[in-house]
Amino acid sequence: MADRYVIGVDFGTLSGRAVVVRVADGHELAAAEHPYRHAVITDRLPPGGPTLPPHWALQVPGDYVDVLRTAVPAAVAAAGIDPAAVIGIGTDFTACTMVPTTAAGVPLCELPAFARRPHAYVKLWRHHAAQAQADRINTLARERGEDWLWRYGGSISSEWEFAKALQLLQEDPEVYAATERWVEAADWIVWQLTGTYLRNACSAGYKGILQDGRYPDRDFLAALHPDFADFVDTKLAQPIGQLGAPAGRLCPAAAAWTGLPEGIAVAVGNVDAHVTSAAADALAPGQLVAIMGTSTCHVVNGAELRRVPGMCGVVLGGISAGAYGYEAGQSGVGDIFGHYTTTIAGRSHQELTDLAARQAVGEHGLIALDWHSGNRSVLVDHDLSGVLVGETLDTRPQDVYRALLEATAFGTRTIVETFTTAGVPVTEFIVAGGLMRNRLLMQIYADVLAMPLSVIGSEQGPALGSAIHAAVAAGAYPDVPAAAAALGRRRRNVYTPVPANSAVYDDLFAEYTRLHDYFGRGGNDVMRRLRALQRRVREATP
Amino acid sequence: MADRYVIGVDFGTLSGRAVVVRVADGHELAAAEHPYRHAVITDRLPPGGPTLPPHWALQVPGDYVDVLRTAVPAAVAAAGIDPAAVIGIGTDFTACTMVPTTAAGVPLCELPAFARRPHAYVKLWRHHAAQAQADRINTLARERGEDWLWRYGGSISSEWEFAKALQLLQEDPEVYAATERWVEAADWIVWQLTGTYLRNACSAGYKGILQDGRYPDRDFLAALHPDFADFVDTKLAQPIGQLGAPAGRLCPAAAAWTGLPEGIAVAVGNVDAHVTSAAADALAPGQLVAIMGTSTCHVVNGAELRRVPGMCGVVLGGISAGAYGYEAGQSGVGDIFGHYTTTIAGRSHQELTDLAARQAVGEHGLIALDWHSGNRSVLVDHDLSGVLVGETLDTRPQDVYRALLEATAFGTRTIVETFTTAGVPVTEFIVAGGLMRNRLLMQIYADVLAMPLSVIGSEQGPALGSAIHAAVAAGAYPDVPAAAAALGRRRRNVYTPVPANSAVYDDLFAEYTRLHDYFGRGGNDVMRRLRALQRRVREATP
Repeated sequence: MADRYVIGVDFGTLSGRAVVVRVADGHELAAAEHPYRHAVITDRLPPGGPTLPPHWALQVPGDYVDVLRTAVPAAVAAAGIDPAAVIGIGTDFTACTMVPTTAAGVPLCELPAFARRPHAYVKLWRHHAAQAQADRINTLARERGEDWLWRYGGSISSEWEFAKALQLLQEDPEVYAATERWVEAADWIVWQLTGTYLRNACSAGYKGILQDGRYPDRDFLAALHPDFADFVDTKLAQPIGQLGAPAGRLCPAAAAWTGLPEGIAVAVGNVDAHVTSAAADALAPGQLVAIMGTSTCHVVNGAELRRVPGMCGVVLGGISAGAYGYEAGQSGVGDIFGHYTTTIAGRSHQELTDLAARQAVGEHGLIALDWHSGNRSVLVDHDLSGVLVGETLDTRPQDVYRALLEATAFGTRTIVETFTTAGVPVTEFIVAGGLMRNRLLMQIYADVLAMPLSVIGSEQGPALGSAIHAAVAAGAYPDVPAAAAALGRRRRNVYTPVPANSAVYDDLFAEYTRLHDYFGRGGNDVMRRLRALQRRVREATP
Repeated sequence: MADRYVIGVDFGTLSGRAVVVRVADGHELAAAEHPYRHAVITDRLPPGGPTLPPHWALQVPGDYVDVLRTAVPAAVAAAGIDPAAVIGIGTDFTACTMVPTTAAGVPLCELPAFARRPHAYVKLWRHHAAQAQADRINTLARERGEDWLWRYGGSISSEWEFAKALQLLQEDPEVYAATERWVEAADWIVWQLTGTYLRNACSAGYKGILQDGRYPDRDFLAALHPDFADFVDTKLAQPIGQLGAPAGRLCPAAAAWTGLPEGIAVAVGNVDAHVTSAAADALAPGQLVAIMGTSTCHVVNGAELRRVPGMCGVVLGGISAGAYGYEAGQSGVGDIFGHYTTTIAGRSHQELTDLAARQAVGEHGLIALDWHSGNRSVLVDHDLSGVLVGETLDTRPQDVYRALLEATAFGTRTIVETFTTAGVPVTEFIVAGGLMRNRLLMQIYADVLAMPLSVIGSEQGPALGSAIHAAVAAGAYPDVPAAAAALGRRRRNVYTPVPANSAVYDDLFAEYTRLHDYFGRGGNDVMRRLRALQRRVREATP
């Protein structure tokens, strides 16, 4: 295996990254990135097309293929290896990101008839315009006592497959009718690589409400909308591929795009967060991986099936085959810091971090709730919003900034404690994602959690994770845990809690929890009312 | 009276202003301002002296005399009048601002032995480091059922004479012992002008707990601290001068400083807020004058004595002789806006006001509590702090700024409604002070209060009010109301409420009240705990 390689490709929100990994030891020889030409389309369709309503976020599927054409060969060239030494390729994607296609997998937006129809484009994960549909699905599921609902913490998200599909049906029935397949982008890209359409177990479970081999039934779908009754049967259901299994072989077209050998193994698709656990060699029950970026995704395997309030989902085989994969999330983390630095204070992260780092815990006198982008776990409420308590005339921007860093740490602790209380113990906390580079933030997390932090040993966590899955698909390792042990890596105890800090944070966490429950659990629904007022006013304003 | 003049001098937080007023009609011929050389000392004593603890705010009394030396002659010169035509001078001051002096009125900080002792300096009104002492006084007064307590809304303030004196005693007994007189700056400056020390009825009543001719008794004082028993008898009590009465005649030294004729009438001292009612010709019961600047002071006469929860005080003759003068206040108003623009957002008032003015009511989705500088009325708690609810990633600085403007309007409405409910009707709302120039803020107040606003007709309200009192002291008018009718002025219905805005603000005020009561009335004492933690941490940090 010393001279054999696998390619991992991570399709993110704004770009795709390819990394070349040595099969023997996980060494990353080189990486290359390709930004999507159309990035995220939120205002109007190119060129000069119709204006999009608020909260829409679309993408162009051709941009994903461009990553295969450019970033993959660039990474291989930079690695200086013979492409013939590559034995497999694996991919991961943002989720839930949905492509409406023909039965042959052609995106509808590539058909001239639909090129100017917004609903024919890819709905990116952060397309948040299907809240009404999600609300309807949740209400109906509660009324009918659907037994899959608790596996999603009691609510499915507006980001997911069913809500987005129902929006499509209600708002553009013609495009809905033309949608012969409703495809996760994670699976669409593998379809392009192999010519075969499999649904991956991860997104089918977390985003597609596939539990114990069943989707929501026809009666339920018909009750949502008469024309939705056969949605699963005709547009969604497809054979399921387990993570790490081969989806197929690299087809000639994809071999031409990538410059890789035709016929090499292509791994089943995967989701960017979940694939990172393998890259961190953190697949054992209790190892929670937090992928911290604009938002944070928490994934942890558990040996048994438990009800965890407010989790995003639990899926058997959702992180690795045979284990119950639990997912939770914080919808705003780096986004909140970025909003404060850029929009409010007009100062850099570096400047505010340096100033905030000089403070003792509790010195700024503030406490914040980290709900500027809603709350994904454990409240599952996108109408929540931020709170800052304690501002005085002495408060400086670095004080607020630090309070926001801390608020996200308290949000993480809430999730960790909820898992533990529900019988899914968290024994190790592993950080991945761009925010791991902020040392102050990491120390705050260690102090707030009163746990040492491990840190993933790669700057390209998802792409490395995809490469690990490629190695398994290619048969170089018997299963994902074995490959992860060989190729994945993390550093343990990189940050350790300072007991004196943790003691103060215990008190502040109690304050956070009191405010969390007051504003989030019905003590005062002011945030919902403010949001409703804002909507009314905006609709009434020309 | 056509060619006779009076001088009003207003001693503010950062500067003193003198105005020359024609006795016949109140015409303001000229004004001049002199900034205090040492401004407000909050960090360390000059030059290079000891560092001050948090929340201290000191001044240098010589700076006040400089105003007499510079601003008064400058105003007279600018007016182009013969100084011999000036028949009287009146003054007003920030309060409660306290000067520790010898029996002869020499400020202790001017004695070389005490020049480096912080407690020997003037404690400005916004010196907020005596909260522990105020708490002790309030607790004891409640325990003992002191019958003066309700006249201060149930709590005396840490800003006032007794709390500041007790802090002095506890923290620097030597300076306390050397303090032969504990003098309101309002009276100290008159003492310098006349050579005679009278206490004015306004500050003695509102800040000095003088009610029905009595101060808190020896037993009470002894229970606070054994060495405090004779505080009133030896350091505080002094003959009382009524507002508008002459305190004495201009002494030779002061005549030399000011260039005014020796022997002219000097009015009894007064407080900047209270003297403004005369300038606005708003002394009738029900006419509430809001002096809106860094903080807001609300003063209104009432025909009868009523218990108003959380008022700062009710004093017979405290605004004008014979009426019950009620005072309430908001400890942060313009200060809060200034902190946000300068310290947090780094943008100008003008820019944020222009942007905020384009919004419809309710559009920003935010609600704030205006307690960045504590809450004076109706909660009387300086350990309270600010709250902002509703921030999202779409929130812009102008949104927060507008929410802060609105929060202060809600705070004002809370005060107005509390007065009315308690049987002190508010029939006209008159604005004075620097913030009256912000048209957006004024419209928000009219909409939130659902009342038309009157606006004082002078840019120099307090100084004009002092000049009116000088005219009475000089015998040109029989009493202050008569002088106010002749020399004071206001414009009525300058801003009128927009009913649609008022309707939305009714809903938002209900939200404000819910948060106000939750954070301010014991629902969640998080602010006090954050403040206590902050103190502990700061004390423990080298």
